[in-house]
Amino acid sequence: MPLLKSWVASANDANHPFPLNNLPYGVFSTGEDDPRCGVAIGDMILDIAAAEAEGLIALTDYPLFDVPYWNDLMEEGPAVWAALRERLTALLAKGSKEQEAVEPLLVPMAEATLHMPLVVSEYTDFYAGKQHAQNMGAILRGSPDLPANWLHIPIGYNGRASSVVVSGTPIHRPNGQTKAPDAEMPSFGPSKRLDIELEMGAIVGTGSEFGQPITVDEADAMIFGYVLLNDWSARDIQGWEYQPLGPFQGKAFGTSISPWIVTASALEPFRAPTPPREKQLLPYLSGSKDGLYNIELEVLMQPEGADHASVIARTNYSRMYYSAAEQLCHHAIGGCAMNAGDLLGSGTISGPERSEFGSLMELSWAGREPFTLETGETRGFIEDGDTLTLRGNARGDGYTIGFGDCVGQILPAKAWG
Amino acid sequence: MPLLKSWVASANDANHPFPLNNLPYGVFSTGEDDPRCGVAIGDMILDIAAAEAEGLIALTDYPLFDVPYWNDLMEEGPAVWAALRERLTALLAKGSKEQEAVEPLLVPMAEATLHMPLVVSEYTDFYAGKQHAQNMGAILRGSPDLPANWLHIPIGYNGRASSVVVSGTPIHRPNGQTKAPDAEMPSFGPSKRLDIELEMGAIVGTGSEFGQPITVDEADAMIFGYVLLNDWSARDIQGWEYQPLGPFQGKAFGTSISPWIVTASALEPFRAPTPPREKQLLPYLSGSKDGLYNIELEVLMQPEGADHASVIARTNYSRMYYSAAEQLCHHAIGGCAMNAGDLLGSGTISGPERSEFGSLMELSWAGREPFTLETGETRGFIEDGDTLTLRGNARGDGYTIGFGDCVGQILPAKAWG
Repeated sequence: MPLLKSWVASANDANHPFPLNNLPYGVFSTGEDDPRCGVAIGDMILDIAAAEAEGLIALTDYPLFDVPYWNDLMEEGPAVWAALRERLTALLAKGSKEQEAVEPLLVPMAEATLHMPLVVSEYTDFYAGKQHAQNMGAILRGSPDLPANWLHIPIGYNGRASSVVVSGTPIHRPNGQTKAPDAEMPSFGPSKRLDIELEMGAIVGTGSEFGQPITVDEADAMIFGYVLLNDWSARDIQGWEYQPLGPFQGKAFGTSISPWIVTASALEPFRAPTPPREKQLLPYLSGSKDGLYNIELEVLMQPEGADHASVIARTNYSRMYYSAAEQLCHHAIGGCAMNAGDLLGSGTISGPERSEFGSLMELSWAGREPFTLETGETRGFIEDGDTLTLRGNARGDGYTIGFGDCVGQILPAKAWG
Repeated sequence: MPLLKSWVASANDANHPFPLNNLPYGVFSTGEDDPRCGVAIGDMILDIAAAEAEGLIALTDYPLFDVPYWNDLMEEGPAVWAALRERLTALLAKGSKEQEAVEPLLVPMAEATLHMPLVVSEYTDFYAGKQHAQNMGAILRGSPDLPANWLHIPIGYNGRASSVVVSGTPIHRPNGQTKAPDAEMPSFGPSKRLDIELEMGAIVGTGSEFGQPITVDEADAMIFGYVLLNDWSARDIQGWEYQPLGPFQGKAFGTSISPWIVTASALEPFRAPTPPREKQLLPYLSGSKDGLYNIELEVLMQPEGADHASVIARTNYSRMYYSAAEQLCHHAIGGCAMNAGDLLGSGTISGPERSEFGSLMELSWAGREPFTLETGETRGFIEDGDTLTLRGNARGDGYTIGFGDCVGQILPAKAWG
């Protein structure tokens, strides 16, 4: 598919993240206005709540967009999702007869504040990157051998929805309980091994019934879209708490997502297969579609006061072993109800080279081999004031599908006790 | 505190679970009516939505009770909770001048259907029973030694809110992935080791801010009330999946709660201390109040077709090592936001004797030592058609604070694949 041309000129640049081919969904406000739904096109945001109010978009008998989340649209299901995309494309295409009516409803993105694009119903994090799992095994257990179940199950655990925040939200370094290997007793204080995890987040659009499993193909059709996701992690808290029931406070102080939901439809041309199965999966985990996407990913780090950010990792979402559809199918296989707004973290995305590792734990090999930024500073883990940015782009024929950066700055721990 | 007498005669029986001292909160419907908030008093339910509509209860300028959940009241905070309890006590007390106005608003409980009493925001399950943790260690790892962190951290993990259901909801035996120790490959099918976990559920009433930790005393004041909670568990699925990130599908097919929220106020006379600390806790985990409650608990099992249920375990909530307030404090210590409607499972409650064990895994020692029901049948784990009931009572001076049974029948697994 080539670039689709828009009458919004900035959207026609081959490297712009928000061409007409993309049309990602966010929530924005300007000045004192209430946050409401918007659609990115070039350097502008279409105020879709206003477009609906003026009758330019009329998918349902009731309003869908004058709210600060996209969950209402998600619940309408794939036919309405497709109708909206078709209508938006018609309104914003070069030569549209409705340009004159739509033009006043565009807001410069530079003047807008972006908010959480959805209400996260529940958040689940997976562990579907093979290189990451092997690296963590080597670092933490002295062996890169995968856990016995890893090649059979898309391993996941439930996370905390209340700590998912939109890009730009500062994150305080968490206080918590840790124990040094040689200490007799645990101690309390700010985490000393603060980390990121480079992930994609899949957003469930249509739900499933309690007690009713789904197939991988059904799961694929239930996914509304994707965001970039930084699953901030306190490795020292996590290391002391996680046996036997998994990560808890080491992951509960913040999970950042990019502000625009890129729809599964926009990503359709970039589908990529999962790698060859090293062990045959059980039949319930088989689907008919390529479940990954070819999305180039970057991690950037900028210390406070540095004049620019350094790229510290570059990899690709197609490096994963399990797809979001496989994860979603497994999530519901015992009858767990899935709902609109459920967020599934892919797991940390790491490629085979060190330059492709998606966490500082791996990039600095648990802090033992600090890396150097372009500005000359070195890092093992995150220091106060550091800003971490995730960036993602799918490269098409003369156009780019971008996600909008997922940014977070780490602030000092709050005083306590 | 003695029995408080009500003009609802059935509420004055010393063994009735719903005297005026209790006043638990539920959601009910009759016939074709929409579910709405109700308060149990003796054998009756006060239609509190109707009482509010008629002006008999007026706590706020907007209605709180004509909805199928108690979350709106929770968000009003402790002063409004106390005002409501005071007003309900006055309306229903023997000699109330408003008896005539209130009487038509009572619905016989026998004619009502009970629904989920709250919208569960997020569900967290803990592991705070020491005997249970030791038993599980002995069964699964061959040693009753506690995990190294157990005496320092109220260990918890995030569960799945979407699978929390009200008492009476049937639960299908889950399908899932398991692997026998001697099998080369995993297989897929219905769980063969289906179990219960006897727990109390604490309901968070007022939330905490993202990034803002809380003290144990603040946490104690945030707890709105308690329910009985059965954390149904598929031990074979859990055993294969839980390393390294904890339980997932082994716990996601159903969690049952009792239909009435017993308020923390009603339980106040039954506060009980946590046992002596075997290791000194870090200061952030210290509070000024006794955080447990003296609540007698029973588990009953009834095979399909059996003419009565057999008691298979009897224990007490005060057997726990950590309180709900300690768990809630720890949950928020890194800055995780807590919200009205968050549900915290206590962890399985097991006392020191086998007759006090709160799961079949422990009662039958992993199925190796099946137990015998009064009807002569034996059980290692749950069989299709079995009904499991949790029951809880706090015994006061001439009165009882009951929870209403937490009941669930296991139905056969759904066909799949």
